[in-house]
Amino acid sequence: MPVQLGYNQYGKAETRVVRVYRDTDPHELVDYNVSCALAGDFRDTHLTGDNSEVLTTDAVKNTVNAFAKEQGEAARQPESFGLALARHFVDDTPSVTRARVSIEMYPWVRLAAHPHAFARDGGHVRTATVTYGDGGPWIVSGIDDLVVLKTTDSEFWGYYQDRYTTLQPTTDRVMATKVRAQWWHTDLAANPAADMGADWAKSYETVLAAMTAAFAGHHSLSLQQTMHAMGEAVLEAQPGIAEIRFSLPNKHHFVVDLSPFGLANPNEVFHADDRPYGLIEGSVRRGDAPDPGLAFDPGQGWR
Amino acid sequence: MPVQLGYNQYGKAETRVVRVYRDTDPHELVDYNVSCALAGDFRDTHLTGDNSEVLTTDAVKNTVNAFAKEQGEAARQPESFGLALARHFVDDTPSVTRARVSIEMYPWVRLAAHPHAFARDGGHVRTATVTYGDGGPWIVSGIDDLVVLKTTDSEFWGYYQDRYTTLQPTTDRVMATKVRAQWWHTDLAANPAADMGADWAKSYETVLAAMTAAFAGHHSLSLQQTMHAMGEAVLEAQPGIAEIRFSLPNKHHFVVDLSPFGLANPNEVFHADDRPYGLIEGSVRRGDAPDPGLAFDPGQGWR
Amino acid sequence: MPVQLGYNQYGKAETRVVRVYRDTDPHELVDYNVSCALAGDFRDTHLTGDNSEVLTTDAVKNTVNAFAKEQGEAARQPESFGLALARHFVDDTPSVTRARVSIEMYPWVRLAAHPHAFARDGGHVRTATVTYGDGGPWIVSGIDDLVVLKTTDSEFWGYYQDRYTTLQPTTDRVMATKVRAQWWHTDLAANPAADMGADWAKSYETVLAAMTAAFAGHHSLSLQQTMHAMGEAVLEAQPGIAEIRFSLPNKHHFVVDLSPFGLANPNEVFHADDRPYGLIEGSVRRGDAPDPGLAFDPGQGWR
Amino acid sequence: MPVQLGYNQYGKAETRVVRVYRDTDPHELVDYNVSCALAGDFRDTHLTGDNSEVLTTDAVKNTVNAFAKEQGEAARQPESFGLALARHFVDDTPSVTRARVSIEMYPWVRLAAHPHAFARDGGHVRTATVTYGDGGPWIVSGIDDLVVLKTTDSEFWGYYQDRYTTLQPTTDRVMATKVRAQWWHTDLAANPAADMGADWAKSYETVLAAMTAAFAGHHSLSLQQTMHAMGEAVLEAQPGIAEIRFSLPNKHHFVVDLSPFGLANPNEVFHADDRPYGLIEGSVRRGDAPDPGLAFDPGQGWR
Repeated sequence: MPVQLGYNQYGKAETRVVRVYRDTDPHELVDYNVSCALAGDFRDTHLTGDNSEVLTTDAVKNTVNAFAKEQGEAARQPESFGLALARHFVDDTPSVTRARVSIEMYPWVRLAAHPHAFARDGGHVRTATVTYGDGGPWIVSGIDDLVVLKTTDSEFWGYYQDRYTTLQPTTDRVMATKVRAQWWHTDLAANPAADMGADWAKSYETVLAAMTAAFAGHHSLSLQQTMHAMGEAVLEAQPGIAEIRFSLPNKHHFVVDLSPFGLANPNEVFHADDRPYGLIEGSVRRGDAPDPGLAFDPGQGWR
Repeated sequence: MPVQLGYNQYGKAETRVVRVYRDTDPHELVDYNVSCALAGDFRDTHLTGDNSEVLTTDAVKNTVNAFAKEQGEAARQPESFGLALARHFVDDTPSVTRARVSIEMYPWVRLAAHPHAFARDGGHVRTATVTYGDGGPWIVSGIDDLVVLKTTDSEFWGYYQDRYTTLQPTTDRVMATKVRAQWWHTDLAANPAADMGADWAKSYETVLAAMTAAFAGHHSLSLQQTMHAMGEAVLEAQPGIAEIRFSLPNKHHFVVDLSPFGLANPNEVFHADDRPYGLIEGSVRRGDAPDPGLAFDPGQGWR
Repeated sequence: MPVQLGYNQYGKAETRVVRVYRDTDPHELVDYNVSCALAGDFRDTHLTGDNSEVLTTDAVKNTVNAFAKEQGEAARQPESFGLALARHFVDDTPSVTRARVSIEMYPWVRLAAHPHAFARDGGHVRTATVTYGDGGPWIVSGIDDLVVLKTTDSEFWGYYQDRYTTLQPTTDRVMATKVRAQWWHTDLAANPAADMGADWAKSYETVLAAMTAAFAGHHSLSLQQTMHAMGEAVLEAQPGIAEIRFSLPNKHHFVVDLSPFGLANPNEVFHADDRPYGLIEGSVRRGDAPDPGLAFDPGQGWR
Repeated sequence: MPVQLGYNQYGKAETRVVRVYRDTDPHELVDYNVSCALAGDFRDTHLTGDNSEVLTTDAVKNTVNAFAKEQGEAARQPESFGLALARHFVDDTPSVTRARVSIEMYPWVRLAAHPHAFARDGGHVRTATVTYGDGGPWIVSGIDDLVVLKTTDSEFWGYYQDRYTTLQPTTDRVMATKVRAQWWHTDLAANPAADMGADWAKSYETVLAAMTAAFAGHHSLSLQQTMHAMGEAVLEAQPGIAEIRFSLPNKHHFVVDLSPFGLANPNEVFHADDRPYGLIEGSVRRGDAPDPGLAFDPGQGWR
């Protein structure tokens, strides 16, 4: 039976590197979880076990650690660190034609009591995904695990009803979600030489502020509408972003029926349910946004 | 600023439905985690909050539960259950043009002591993803969380060396991985009317046996080579499968250096490491496999 | 063979109740995960299946939800909510002689943009465990998942060396831990009638500030020493606390050896390791602290 | 303010060691997660940072790895491996007066296709906890993550009713739980010299078979009654066990109300709920069982 190798990529996932900057006073630190995926011509290792074109995943890990030192300034932000790594893998490894570096950055806040001490800010994870080669680079920033909730200003009614619809409409509900979002920087993609100078941290803070303000201030008729408003706010606040994509689980807070106990419950006591959950996903783009290419994924179901 | 709504989908994720068949003796059961994603024309809810075209995710959950009763025979296998659900959402909901139903099935084994009692088989999760509409259906079966290990018959040497390469070559190592794989049934996609009669359980068992036999029996020069051999074995064993995709974390087992304690360690004591890990991903296809279309993903980075 | 029923307890674990206070402007909310364990004379249900003395765990859940409404003021703090619940289960259920209510409280911070919107503060979980009956109440407050790190001011040397010791001493290392701590309030236990008026939130903030200040400001020769300093600081800051217990995993940050790449690494690049980890546990008590009784556990390995 | 150090212990948690026996044909392997906690006189490191009595947790890890080689036969079973380690820490380290070694053992099953290849059996985790010193040893075996379910032969009715009781009685329900159990071997504790010869694997299989047979075959009026029957069956099957303790979450399977869709649901379609869950804990002991001492915990809330 004739079979053939299809799409493939490989690399080292989840290298947990922490870089401390000790030449500042007080010290600074970045805390990363770095995953690298390499694509190119790797037929031989699949078909015959000839590894002569394979950069080992151990070397990929070593490179992440070494670059945290060698590329100290680039390593201060996940976008520039990812770009430095992705460029290296493609430019310096003969067999690699495309590299995709995905970074989770765990924020820390300085403790008041002492300059060199920190507490982990568990309220959100900052992310960056850089794809280089095959027409790139594409630089995508993101956020994960940002849990937000509003106690009012959320309605849901007037929906399509079929035989299986039993939900009661509401003009006042608790709305909560855990935001996962990714946004693509086109100004930078058009001008890759400029990337190192971009103020990535400031850009991230601007997006975070716009996103949470839109969530908080929007009078919601559906989580989809709120998502769109959040996307619109981000695109308005940060002109260099062409598109933002969201994955928003609807963290249901159900009003508990207290009537068996002779108690009214005017939206005061809720059950925070685990599963199932609504899952709302969508993209908001500038009208003139270019094709995203491989920005959000390398295609064909691969990440 | 002109912005536009991009790709979007929504639905209910992780409905945990268990169906007991009590008209058999002994009882049978299936245990599912069902996630449904619907796509279509949902501009209004995003832009104005007009939900008149929106089937509620609560109704999606209700449908999953109701179909477990109404479509009792289809519900016996995740592939046919997913197809019944996906068809319904597209065919019976005006605004829905595509549905994607992803199911995790948790296997149970009957306890010896009593006919109606079971223990969860935690050794693997069976999966199915059915996409209907936009040219489908596509039916994809899969496995997750299958952890396999071999204590020998695995080598790794002769790889490309760069400045950051420090790994020592080996002709005998422990190789372990946690298999996630998905395979696409083309015979069925070509003949969707026939699907209900397919013996999905038998097909799954055949794939599982072929996959583990290839892992066990293959003398490995790289995890990529083993992956390809596993894919080839599956395609040989089950002619109706056009393509199989793998995601294989290399669960590193490092030989512990016991020399400081005056002890030799000829591949006897290993540290099972957590992170980082190699991640090998690839596809094996028949030479004449058609384009997979939306089988493995709906495109543009969405799942 | 004569067997007998030993220690037993039962209840409902992890009731996820969210209480919104809508009569304030802006709204306030508390977010709890409540676990209740009841002990008493429950021999019959174990031995014969006679449940006539068993309060159902479903009713326990209902009580948690109902009390979130009925005992609205008590529900504002986990300590007073736990005490109200524990008292009820013992005083109002004939068969229950002791109740232990353990609460996780998830902090939220108000978003700037709108008064009724919040983001989850993922940086720590506040806990309370209240035991009532059998001589109680005992009220224990706590914290979990507080991850702290200092980039310097930590040494480790001069330790005992045996045949298996290979660790190199250091006078400057990164020290990080994830704090789990519990502290017992004796002033309140001595005067249970006063508990509702205690400013539990203020007490918690005082402990959190003292604990993090001690971690940050302490020049550490061992994690044990730092733990003791943290405990001492807490007891000094909050006179009503008789004892505090810690469980501190040493989240190892290993200096990466970059010398194969010709790079020095003067404590700049670290690998944040997952497993194994040191685990330091200990208690700091006032010299005149009474016996903790059932404050920290009901004894015999039960929680 | 006079404060004092209370109870304390420390050690290395979760050393993930895999031991391959290559002198057998086919190879055998054991897969352990080993946590060691040491107690003794460690005042100095807490109070002054003088570590001269402290065996480093790094050396503890090294010892686990070295013993997997040096004590190869003892390492074949978690009970004997734990005892060898605990004895060493107490007998060979001047400051250590008590050691507690807790081991998780992950079972593997041999793949049919090749003698040296295995698949992880995810259906249960075998455990052992050995405490040595202060009057020990105590040897406790256990199981975790064994998920069992029965589709019938389970009733629940006739319970106490209070104001918050709304549950409807049932004479036929699905009952499911995830078994965590620990049992104490007194014959061995009385004769520690004999322990190496005990057939721990056979003892474990006997307990597992007795426990699951009792779950399956018992007509249940409450989960408490089933738990007691399981304990009784274990004590009958294995005379050397003096006491067994269970922690059984009631994994609720709720009958879904399908009546809004015009469908009957005679115990066929269930929602497998996550939280909250009933939690049933209890001990079954021989009538002449001695005091368990530190077998199940070292007391005062420590594990």
